[in-house]
Amino acid sequence: MTTIKVAIVGAAGETGMSIVKALLPSTTPKFEITSLTRPASVNKPINVELKNKGVQIVPVSLTGPQDEVVKALAGIDVVISTINPAALNEQIHLADAAKLAGVKRFIPSNWAPVTPPEGVMLAREQKERIINHVLKIRLGYTIIDVGLWYQVAVPPVPSGRLDYCAAKALKPLWALGGDGNVASALTYLDDIGRYVAHIIADPRTLNKKVFAYNETLTRNQIYDLLERLSGESLERNYVSEEEANKNIEQAKKAWQKNPEEINAYFALAMAQYFMSVCIRGDNTPECAQYLGYLDCKDLYPDFEFYPFEQYLRDALDGKAKPVLMDY
Amino acid sequence: MTTIKVAIVGAAGETGMSIVKALLPSTTPKFEITSLTRPASVNKPINVELKNKGVQIVPVSLTGPQDEVVKALAGIDVVISTINPAALNEQIHLADAAKLAGVKRFIPSNWAPVTPPEGVMLAREQKERIINHVLKIRLGYTIIDVGLWYQVAVPPVPSGRLDYCAAKALKPLWALGGDGNVASALTYLDDIGRYVAHIIADPRTLNKKVFAYNETLTRNQIYDLLERLSGESLERNYVSEEEANKNIEQAKKAWQKNPEEINAYFALAMAQYFMSVCIRGDNTPECAQYLGYLDCKDLYPDFEFYPFEQYLRDALDGKAKPVLMDY
Repeated sequence: MTTIKVAIVGAAGETGMSIVKALLPSTTPKFEITSLTRPASVNKPINVELKNKGVQIVPVSLTGPQDEVVKALAGIDVVISTINPAALNEQIHLADAAKLAGVKRFIPSNWAPVTPPEGVMLAREQKERIINHVLKIRLGYTIIDVGLWYQVAVPPVPSGRLDYCAAKALKPLWALGGDGNVASALTYLDDIGRYVAHIIADPRTLNKKVFAYNETLTRNQIYDLLERLSGESLERNYVSEEEANKNIEQAKKAWQKNPEEINAYFALAMAQYFMSVCIRGDNTPECAQYLGYLDCKDLYPDFEFYPFEQYLRDALDGKAKPVLMDY
Repeated sequence: MTTIKVAIVGAAGETGMSIVKALLPSTTPKFEITSLTRPASVNKPINVELKNKGVQIVPVSLTGPQDEVVKALAGIDVVISTINPAALNEQIHLADAAKLAGVKRFIPSNWAPVTPPEGVMLAREQKERIINHVLKIRLGYTIIDVGLWYQVAVPPVPSGRLDYCAAKALKPLWALGGDGNVASALTYLDDIGRYVAHIIADPRTLNKKVFAYNETLTRNQIYDLLERLSGESLERNYVSEEEANKNIEQAKKAWQKNPEEINAYFALAMAQYFMSVCIRGDNTPECAQYLGYLDCKDLYPDFEFYPFEQYLRDALDGKAKPVLMDY
């Protein structure tokens, strides 16, 4: 029986937890999971919980002495980073240590809608620096992007019964770009880990980009479906390309005044996200293929995912799990 | 009979001429060639010669009014740029116009040894800006890298009989990196155009990177072969990684003092080239595959290329054609 040794950075985040939850019960292959955690976080409840589930908790500072990071990665086959956006650059240290430790596959923190590497989203450009460093040191890698989470794509309804699960921090993404007919790929958060379990055991995905998503819908289709299932009428806020560009310019100015201000960065990221996903239409299987991604539908045609319509039904029934945006 | 309409920028350069020479006689498919040339160059002897051979010469300034560039590209299927390194950024205008004109495939000026996109060669980073712009505007593309020209990889021999064809401007590349056993892919300049004739008619290469090369040899193998064929003994100048790094640092300082000085830029490029090709060993089929390139040996297994040993024999017989480095 194959056992793949996986080290994860960011296990306590939404994506990290989705991955741990999917890898733990797997038997073919079996995964042995190590969570690298900041020394200050080692006794947090989440880490105690992970430890009880069979995850090895290893305290290590990625920016500390390199030999300690290398030691923490000894024997590891796959390193998965779901590190938060503010700490992306720590992955340079992580990748260097992974190379020295003989790690076979490094998965940097992408986990986002598909967007071109440059000129559209600052956040994507920052990720490109990490990817290019990995390429420079010739470390085995896989880039995984996942489209938009169901949880993020669904606006609340007038009755208020979706307020408990609507991702308010991402409110700008509820609007409709252009005429609302721009398609976008959607993924259920818990399915991400299940895709990862396939991807990291698959030699076809080594040194490739993979687009892992469930369904592709336009904003109008999402609103239509939500109206039909809820029996409620939704206001549709259409945002033109011109307006979306203005929003980016404004957010950019505010951020340039306060480049250390996380909320200003977040506002710019949202404005650029909207442009990419809702106006340009970058987050589609077609664009992903153009940009060189392998498509999970080709790789795993039998993968059973949680359908978007079922998510809406469950959400309206009060059974959705709100996402914690720990940006 | 298929006819592919090709526009080329830089037809008068070494790579451009190799391409024109290969496309002109082709019948399956047939290529209709347009050369976009600076208005000031339209009556140069090379353009008159090209015109006599059946190439349509169209004077246009890439940085002039966009509608004129779009008009020059009307009906064109494939745009091939072999623009010189100092004018790389003009390709942004060319790509934008190609997108508007409905061009199906854009080939930016790469034509170099394989190297990672960032952190190794400034020249490669500049090319990455162009590639990323193409990806941003979603223009069909192919990236073609070609390894090291035979002409550039061969040092002179003590008798002086190779002086006529040794590329003196690239003298730093004659040295041996490390222990001289670093492999590097080599290509004959005239074969580049023949590869291009295959690549641009091949749907498998659309939106891909392709590595087109003839043979892979280490520097010691090149020196051994040259010694055997010439009967002369060659001095081998081994350069360590440390020394190569020092050369880069020195060249970088000189260039930073005079960033507009083409010779300073060229010296830096040479030092970084040496590091990439002769020390790091980036310019190999294995690295190319890792970096996502398709391999011409897989695509065109029956391609008959001019063997390196034959080139050496011909060069020693006084029959090699010197390259014109118009950097």
